[in-house]
Amino acid sequence: MQNFFQRLDPESCTCAYILVDESSRKAVLIDPVREQVDRDLTLLNEHQLTLEWILETHVHADHVTGAAQLQAATHAATAVSELAGVACASRHLHEGETVTFGEQSLSVIAIPGHTAGCVSYLWRDRLFSGDALLIDGCGRTDFQEGDPGQLYDSIAGKLFALPDETLVYPAHDYSGRQVTTIGEQRQANPRLAGKSREAFIDLMDKLDLDAPRKIQVALPANRLCGREPTLNELM
Amino acid sequence: MQNFFQRLDPESCTCAYILVDESSRKAVLIDPVREQVDRDLTLLNEHQLTLEWILETHVHADHVTGAAQLQAATHAATAVSELAGVACASRHLHEGETVTFGEQSLSVIAIPGHTAGCVSYLWRDRLFSGDALLIDGCGRTDFQEGDPGQLYDSIAGKLFALPDETLVYPAHDYSGRQVTTIGEQRQANPRLAGKSREAFIDLMDKLDLDAPRKIQVALPANRLCGREPTLNELM
Repeated sequence: MQNFFQRLDPESCTCAYILVDESSRKAVLIDPVREQVDRDLTLLNEHQLTLEWILETHVHADHVTGAAQLQAATHAATAVSELAGVACASRHLHEGETVTFGEQSLSVIAIPGHTAGCVSYLWRDRLFSGDALLIDGCGRTDFQEGDPGQLYDSIAGKLFALPDETLVYPAHDYSGRQVTTIGEQRQANPRLAGKSREAFIDLMDKLDLDAPRKIQVALPANRLCGREPTLNELM
Repeated sequence: MQNFFQRLDPESCTCAYILVDESSRKAVLIDPVREQVDRDLTLLNEHQLTLEWILETHVHADHVTGAAQLQAATHAATAVSELAGVACASRHLHEGETVTFGEQSLSVIAIPGHTAGCVSYLWRDRLFSGDALLIDGCGRTDFQEGDPGQLYDSIAGKLFALPDETLVYPAHDYSGRQVTTIGEQRQANPRLAGKSREAFIDLMDKLDLDAPRKIQVALPANRLCGREPTLNELM
C-alpha cells in the first residue's frame, strides 16, 4: 500500500503530506490547507486511514490551515511548536520530541528563523522542512519574528548536518518540484551554499518583498488552528 | 540506522546505491563502479552490512562494473536482466521478478530502449531507473540495441504509471542532483513531457552524440561481470 502522499494546493503552492503506518493504517497530516480539507478527507477515506495527528510546521502567513475542520471531522489531535503561540493546539512540541502513529514515529527539530515557532519533522530519512528550507531557496525572515541569523543557524547548523541522502520535502514549491535532498541543498542552494552567516544575513535583509496577500486573514485564523475568529476575538 | 546510501563516482558520474534491511543488516548494491570497490567495501564494513546482491540496471558502456571484485570480496550474488547477455551473472532477471534481502524485497521492471536488457528496480517507493529515465533527461538510444520507440513505451507507458510521489534515482547525474520524482518527470522532463511517441523518436534519432569514451573497454568487461577479458576471450 502507498504510505506517503504529497498533495499541492494550487493557489498557495502549499504542499501537504500524509504519512501512513502500514500496519495500523494510522496517519499523520502535515500542513493541511483549509480549501483542501475535502480532498484530504476523501484521500483518508479512500485509503481507509485513521488520522491521528495534524501537524503544523509553523503558523503560516499565506494560507489558512485546515486543522480545525479536519479535527472536527476526524477527531485527530493537533500539534505545533510550543513557541508558535497557538493555544488551541492539542499538543505543544519542543525540540527533540517524538510524535508517534502506530509503529511509526517522527522527531521534532526546532528550526527558528522564518518564524520563532518553526519546526521540521523527520520521519525515517524524510525531512519536512516547512518554510525554513525550500528547494533552492529558503523562507523569508522579514515578519513574524523572522531572524536571518537564526535561520542560517537552523539550516546550515542543524539541517545540513543530516546525511546527504535525507529527502527534503518543503511546505511550498512554486515551480512544480516535489523533493530535494540535504546533499543537493548543501551543495547548491543559491541562498546558502558557500555563504557565510554574515553574507546570508545581508542577502536576506535586502530582499524587500511584498507582504503575503493573505497575511491579515491567515495569521489570526492560524493562531486559532484555522477557526474563524469570533467578533469578540477580533476586537 | 541509515538504510539507504547513494554514492557518486566522480569520473563517470555514476550513482551507486546501497539498500539495507535494518533487521538483518543484509544489503543490496546497485550499479557498482570498479574504481569505487574499495569505497563500497569500506562502507559495508563500517556499517556492518552483509552484501547479498550486486544488481546491474544494464550493461554499462561508460564504466566497468565492480561486480566481479565485490563478489570475490563478499561472496554476494550478482544479478542482471536475462536479456543483457551476461552469462557470468549468478541470476538472470525477468519482468516482475522479486529480489529479496532479509525482510526487504525489490521488484524488477523491464524497461528496454536504452539497451534491450535494461531493468529498473522498485524498492518501497523508490525506483532505480538506470540509464532509461534520468533527471530531466533519458538514456541515449543509438547503440547497444537502443530503440527510441521502446524507450518511450518503457518510460511513458510503464514508469510514468507509478504514483507521482515515487522517488526516481538514476544511474547518472552530471550536475550534482540526487533524486527526482515520477510526478516531476511526467510534468517536466524536457525529452518526454507533452511529446508524442513520434516526436520523441524523431528527437532521439537526431541527437548525433559521440560514442562514450570507454565503450570499447566497458562493454566487453561488463559482459564478463567486470572481469578483464583474457587474451583468448579477446581473440
